Amino acid sequence: MAEALRIGIAGLGTVGASVVRMLAAKQAELTRQCGRGIVPVAVSARDRGKDRGVDLSQAQWFDDPVALARAPGIEVFVELIGGEDGPALAAVRAALEAGRHVVTANKALLSRHGVELATIAEEKGVLLNYEAAVAGGIPVIKTMREALAGNRVNRVFGILNGTANYILTRMEAEGIDFETCLAEAQRLGYAEADPTFDIEGHDTAHKLSILTSLAFGCRISARDIYMEGISNITQADIRAASELGYRIKLLGVAQKTESGIEQRVHPTMVPVSSVIAQVHGVTNAVAIETDMLGELLLSGPGAGGDATASAVIGDIADIAKSRPGFQHGPVFGWPARALTPYQRARMRAHAGGYFIRLTVYDRTGVFAAIAGRMAENDISLESIVQHGDATEEAHKTVVLVTHETTEAAVRKAVTEITQDGHLTTKPQVIRIERAA
Amino acid sequence: MAEALRIGIAGLGTVGASVVRMLAAKQAELTRQCGRGIVPVAVSARDRGKDRGVDLSQAQWFDDPVALARAPGIEVFVELIGGEDGPALAAVRAALEAGRHVVTANKALLSRHGVELATIAEEKGVLLNYEAAVAGGIPVIKTMREALAGNRVNRVFGILNGTANYILTRMEAEGIDFETCLAEAQRLGYAEADPTFDIEGHDTAHKLSILTSLAFGCRISARDIYMEGISNITQADIRAASELGYRIKLLGVAQKTESGIEQRVHPTMVPVSSVIAQVHGVTNAVAIETDMLGELLLSGPGAGGDATASAVIGDIADIAKSRPGFQHGPVFGWPARALTPYQRARMRAHAGGYFIRLTVYDRTGVFAAIAGRMAENDISLESIVQHGDATEEAHKTVVLVTHETTEAAVRKAVTEITQDGHLTTKPQVIRIERAA
Repeated sequence: MAEALRIGIAGLGTVGASVVRMLAAKQAELTRQCGRGIVPVAVSARDRGKDRGVDLSQAQWFDDPVALARAPGIEVFVELIGGEDGPALAAVRAALEAGRHVVTANKALLSRHGVELATIAEEKGVLLNYEAAVAGGIPVIKTMREALAGNRVNRVFGILNGTANYILTRMEAEGIDFETCLAEAQRLGYAEADPTFDIEGHDTAHKLSILTSLAFGCRISARDIYMEGISNITQADIRAASELGYRIKLLGVAQKTESGIEQRVHPTMVPVSSVIAQVHGVTNAVAIETDMLGELLLSGPGAGGDATASAVIGDIADIAKSRPGFQHGPVFGWPARALTPYQRARMRAHAGGYFIRLTVYDRTGVFAAIAGRMAENDISLESIVQHGDATEEAHKTVVLVTHETTEAAVRKAVTEITQDGHLTTKPQVIRIERAA
Repeated sequence: MAEALRIGIAGLGTVGASVVRMLAAKQAELTRQCGRGIVPVAVSARDRGKDRGVDLSQAQWFDDPVALARAPGIEVFVELIGGEDGPALAAVRAALEAGRHVVTANKALLSRHGVELATIAEEKGVLLNYEAAVAGGIPVIKTMREALAGNRVNRVFGILNGTANYILTRMEAEGIDFETCLAEAQRLGYAEADPTFDIEGHDTAHKLSILTSLAFGCRISARDIYMEGISNITQADIRAASELGYRIKLLGVAQKTESGIEQRVHPTMVPVSSVIAQVHGVTNAVAIETDMLGELLLSGPGAGGDATASAVIGDIADIAKSRPGFQHGPVFGWPARALTPYQRARMRAHAGGYFIRLTVYDRTGVFAAIAGRMAENDISLESIVQHGDATEEAHKTVVLVTHETTEAAVRKAVTEITQDGHLTTKPQVIRIERAA
């Protein structure tokens, strides 16, 4: 049997501690599967004294992750520090430059520096594996990078943030409003004290930017992502969606269009009969639509120490099975130097169906005026529902669902309707997404 | 750039022709992804003269697939002939013995001879890839063999046959009976003239046996699979399931229990709110439940020329990316010689919930007698629903849903109820399966 694979782990938070514990518990299985053992010979973290419930007595301690990344005798550097710059970036760069394979769970780092790091990895002939960076334990990177070789991706979309999905799921199941639900999620530890990163879509955008590069062979560009969060979703939206056969999910969507690539993160109506509509709570899901395969969907735990550790260990095992001299596939499916510049499609050119909820003054002719503005902008309607508002007799709710139209047309029509003075409150516009 | 990978393809039916066409159409992408081209330099099929709509002029023709498998200059032998013995077996064996990598879509072959073939492949140090053999284009083999390294699987289950799922989906959507639906499926080409293989569960069993080996590191044993088909599912079952919050799917389930491994294929009630319940029509799905990850679900096209070709090409691309000297992971996750004997759990020991539908004579005391038999066998009931039968006043329908109990207890209770003389027709018993 070959010698054990010697790895160094930087970052011993929830995921790091789980990786160390699982490697110890599963030594026999991993050895049988990989043809050799996997041994953490060195570790690094901020606080050496902290009790993490794992045995680190056999591993050399480093205060500096960069020194660990360069340490002789380390074949794989596992980066679980987090953060898009700082020590994580310095250590990963140092490891790759020193010819070490790297495994990372760091979506922010890859979203910002992925192409540069991939270029170094490919020049040095080492692997840069990052399954845990997107959708936790779901093997979406392996699927897109390896299983779908030769497929041309048309669209990739998914539920990539467990906190947002947890909140939307509870809002629908229990009929409670966004603020109450967020407070509950914070109390239970599903949402951070500052929840902006999760609920406004930044986390989803980081992950989406990586999937976009894998899907379309373009450079990563997280700054070009159109983003709307879920904080303005109300019970009225959820109820109206349900009546019309839809469910609201925070999706990240990347799609090839004639004018470029759309990357967008926003609350989205998906058909309630679709598979992705059944993805509840903190579970994540990714759907990939290709020319050869049609739609493939993967769903599973998107976070959590053990689920994320599973992806990290899968990445390490792939390296353990390889041998010196092995020529690896490129980090983002296409060689880093061949990735094309990201060409952003204009959001105003986005084509799709729209859900529009308007609260209007109960006056004669309002309904006709709204329908007229839609027609003037060439927006054809799939359905139009008018409700009395039980709590406010002078107001009515009008819900419109459009056939495929453009973002520009919808924005123009809604602005005109607003300027016409019919609305009592801000209009709500939610995009509809096809899903199998 | 390295030299192109030279492959030989035996079998030019729907999948084989699609592989040839896609390799030609996607030469540039594949070369960029793999670092070298993939060229079919030789082909074999039964009828040389047939027009398959693909250009074979650059490939050498072989009448004998075994001769192709051994032909010098072939690095990968792609077996798309089909059949568990005969030329497919002879050719795959010959290719492996000659030190060629093999890619196959042949579930029947692997189900019967997989361990023997894996042993040869591992001795010769070549790859035996078979993504297309289970669930078509869904990358379940790659996920189980690579991504889930170190995970201990508790249960794997799935919708593995598109024909059966298509029939069940239409029966529910349109309220038509099994025979009408089957005839429709045959007319549309979704079911064979002899549909036994699909609807009685044999096809599901073949695929399940491969997943079982990957999940539990045991030898493949398709002959030990408990099997029930869907031909006795009625509208009464589908309606009762729906009222109780379930949907009926033909599942293959493999599960580790105290007494061994359960492998079973049968119509199954799954919660209508589960992801797998939304898998409609010819789509397939596989759920994998592990200690580290929880439940992971993959769904997508389980058949069709291009979807299956996608899996075959993914397998070939993995070989194209590897280089001589690369040590491959074992064919079934564990080295073939280390696979444990399959230890079959007794079906009577199966523990789970049950749906029981009885048509009874409308006599005083029948209801109490049935409830009494359940209690005598220690079966606790989650719900019991009694319906009048509109078409037959003298009959009533009783639907019972049990809490977790054993197959032995349910069989005994149902036999006793039948012998008590209360039933007007054969009782219907459908197992319930947990699903996320």
